[in-house]
Amino acid sequence: MAIARRSTGGDCVGIVGAGQLARMTYQAGIALGLTVRLLAETPEDAAALVAADVETGSARSLDALRHFAASCDVLTFEHELIDPAHLRDLESAGHILRPGAAVATTVFDKRRQREVMVKEGLPVPAYTDAVEGADDVVAFGDRHGWPLVVKLANGGYDGRGVFVVSDAVEAEQLLVELAGRALLVEAWVPIERELAVMVARRPSGECVVYPVVETVQRDGICHEVFTPAPLSALLEAQAKAMGRRVAESMDLVGVLAVELFVTADGLVVNELAARPHNSGHHTIEGCVTSQFENHLRAVLDLPLGEPGLVGTAVAMANVLGAADGLDPQAALGAALEVPGAHVHLYGKQARPGRKLGHVTVVGDDLDDARERARRAAGLLMGTREREPV
Amino acid sequence: MAIARRSTGGDCVGIVGAGQLARMTYQAGIALGLTVRLLAETPEDAAALVAADVETGSARSLDALRHFAASCDVLTFEHELIDPAHLRDLESAGHILRPGAAVATTVFDKRRQREVMVKEGLPVPAYTDAVEGADDVVAFGDRHGWPLVVKLANGGYDGRGVFVVSDAVEAEQLLVELAGRALLVEAWVPIERELAVMVARRPSGECVVYPVVETVQRDGICHEVFTPAPLSALLEAQAKAMGRRVAESMDLVGVLAVELFVTADGLVVNELAARPHNSGHHTIEGCVTSQFENHLRAVLDLPLGEPGLVGTAVAMANVLGAADGLDPQAALGAALEVPGAHVHLYGKQARPGRKLGHVTVVGDDLDDARERARRAAGLLMGTREREPV
Repeated sequence: MAIARRSTGGDCVGIVGAGQLARMTYQAGIALGLTVRLLAETPEDAAALVAADVETGSARSLDALRHFAASCDVLTFEHELIDPAHLRDLESAGHILRPGAAVATTVFDKRRQREVMVKEGLPVPAYTDAVEGADDVVAFGDRHGWPLVVKLANGGYDGRGVFVVSDAVEAEQLLVELAGRALLVEAWVPIERELAVMVARRPSGECVVYPVVETVQRDGICHEVFTPAPLSALLEAQAKAMGRRVAESMDLVGVLAVELFVTADGLVVNELAARPHNSGHHTIEGCVTSQFENHLRAVLDLPLGEPGLVGTAVAMANVLGAADGLDPQAALGAALEVPGAHVHLYGKQARPGRKLGHVTVVGDDLDDARERARRAAGLLMGTREREPV
Repeated sequence: MAIARRSTGGDCVGIVGAGQLARMTYQAGIALGLTVRLLAETPEDAAALVAADVETGSARSLDALRHFAASCDVLTFEHELIDPAHLRDLESAGHILRPGAAVATTVFDKRRQREVMVKEGLPVPAYTDAVEGADDVVAFGDRHGWPLVVKLANGGYDGRGVFVVSDAVEAEQLLVELAGRALLVEAWVPIERELAVMVARRPSGECVVYPVVETVQRDGICHEVFTPAPLSALLEAQAKAMGRRVAESMDLVGVLAVELFVTADGLVVNELAARPHNSGHHTIEGCVTSQFENHLRAVLDLPLGEPGLVGTAVAMANVLGAADGLDPQAALGAALEVPGAHVHLYGKQARPGRKLGHVTVVGDDLDDARERARRAAGLLMGTREREPV
C-alpha cells in the first residue's frame, strides 16, 4: 500500500514501527518538510492512521525489512521488536541504519547494555547474566540479598518482562515459566526517585543533552514525567554526563533515553533505549526542540536543536486505557478546559492499561503544572470528574 | 483516492483545500487524535503530501464539494477560491459548515467585508463599491485624492488583485484590463505600520484574541510577522477589541484574521480572512495554543486554548521562492544551525515568489528574534550566506 507521494528534495527517512513514537516523529517531520515512510504492522497503527506513506509488514520479517529499506535512504526504528541480525543483514547490504546495527545489538539486549555501562565505569546494580537455572538465581539472592529482580534480556517493555522475586520458591516457579529465555538477575535497589535523561547525537559527534526529568512509575509503567527534577546541581550534572558518556561510547546516532535511579549511594544507571522515549514526550511543547525533531535531525545528520526548557517547569501525565475501555476521545472537551493542557491522543483502540495519549503542561510552578497535567489526563481516563464551574 | 483509515471516536473534520494552511492544521489535528480529511486539487498539494486521507477534486466544483462533504461531519476551508453559493447549497442540504456560508459570503467579497465594518462603526479607508467604469474611479480620485487603490472584490491574495493607480490615464488602462470584474476603490492611506489580530471563536460564543502582531509586507506579500508590536497599550487594546467585534458581529466560528493599518489618525481596518492566516504562523511555537489547533477546536465546538505568548518576543519570517528556483530543502542544514530557528517547509515545488515555508524564533529580545528568523529564512532562500564559524 505504498503511495508515491513525496515532498520535494531531501532524503527519505524510513521508520520501522508505526506506534505513537513514530506518529510524533512523523509530526516533527512534517514541519521540516521531510519525506518520512513507515513500516506498520497494521493500517490501524497509531502512526499509520495519519501518515501518507505507509507500508505494512512485520518488523520481525527480514523480507519485509528488505522491501521497506529498498524505498528509503536512511532507516530508523521506534521499538526493539526487531532481530538485530536482520539489521546487520540490512547494513551489510549497504542500507544506512541510524542508529546502526551495532547499537541495536547492544541496546536490544539488557545484558549487553550492562556490559557497556560496566566498561564505561558507570554505576549499575549488582547483577549477573550467567543464569542457567534457578540455582544461579538463588545463589545470587543469597549473596546480594532478597528480594531480587529477574529481567528478560530481550523484548520487555512497560513493566513486562521484569519480575521481583522474594525467595527461592518464587525463583524456582519463575524460572520454569521463563524456561529458554535469556535472563538478567540483579539486586533490588532501594530507590529514592527515578530519573531519565535524553541525549541526541548525530554522526559528526555533535551531541545535546536534555534537562534531567523525574519519572513516576507504577507497576513498571510510566505515569508522570516532570522537570526540573528536584536534584542537586551535582546530581543533575552527573546524570547528564552519564547520558552523554553512554551515547559517545556506543557511537550513537539518534536519541537515547537513559533511565537512572537515585539511591542512598548516588546515581545508578538502569536501562537504555536508543529511540524517542516516553520520558521525552514533554519536550514537544516544553523544550526548544523536541526529542522527535532532534531524532530526525540526528538521523539525517542535520544540526541538532537546542534542548533547553521554554518555561520554568514542564509536567507530562500519561493517558492509560481505563478498566472499562473508555475512549479518551469522548472526554476531549473536558480535558481541553484545563488551562494550558496540551492534549495528545494517539488514535489507538482503548484497552485497559494501554498508552493512549499524554498531556503536557508548561508553567511557572512545577506543582501547579503537575496538577494540571494529572487533572487533564485523569479526565481523559475517566478517573477524575469535571470541576464544578 | 479516499482511504478508509480513521482514528477512534470523534467527528471527522473535512478541510476544503490542501495547501500549507491545511498542512499545519492537519499537524494540529494529529496531536488531538482527530480525524481530518482533505479535499486537494492535486496529490502534490502541500497537505496532500503528508495526510492519510485525501480526496482529490476541485473546490470550484459543486459535485466535488458534495462528494467530499458526504464523508465528513463538519466542513471548513483554507482558502477563498470557493463559490459561496456552493457553500449555501451544502448548508441547505444539511451539512455543517464552520464558518458557515453566511460568513463565507461576507469575507470572500471585499465589498461585503466593508459593509460589515461600516455597520459595526469600525474605521475603514474612504471607499466606494459603485464602480461601473473608469469615470467612477476618476471621480473618486478627484474627491479623495491620488493615488488611489483599486481592488478586485473577489479572489485576490498575496498582493494579486490590488492596484495602486496614480492618475486618470492609469485608471482608464486598468479598467480595460479588469473589465467585467467586481471592484472596490479606496483612498490610498499613508500607513505607519501594518498590524494583524487573530481571533478564535466557537459556536457557544467563547472567543479568544491573540496578541497583536506587526506584519512587514512587500509588494503585498507578507515577509515578516512579529510580536509584541511596538504599540501603545491603548492601540493594542483597540485592535483586539476590533477583532473581537468583527468576529462577534458575523457570528464567526473558527479563526479570523483582521488586518489593520496604523495611520496618523489611528487604526483603520483593512481586510478580513476567516481561516488560519500567515499572520498567525508564529503561534505554533510562540503561543500556548496555535491558531491551527484553535481553529480545529472552534470548528468542533471544543473549549478554546490560551492564546498568550510563551516567551517575551516571537518573530516569523517567510521563506519565499528564490528567482533561481532554489529548493529551500537544500539549505535546511544551514538554516538549522541558527539557534532557536523553528523551520517549517511545506514540501511545495519551488517557484519564484511562492510561499515555500517559514521560520519562527521565540526569544527574550525582539530584535534578536527577528534577526535570527530573517537569517534562517534568508539561508533557505539563498539570499544569505552561512556565517563563518
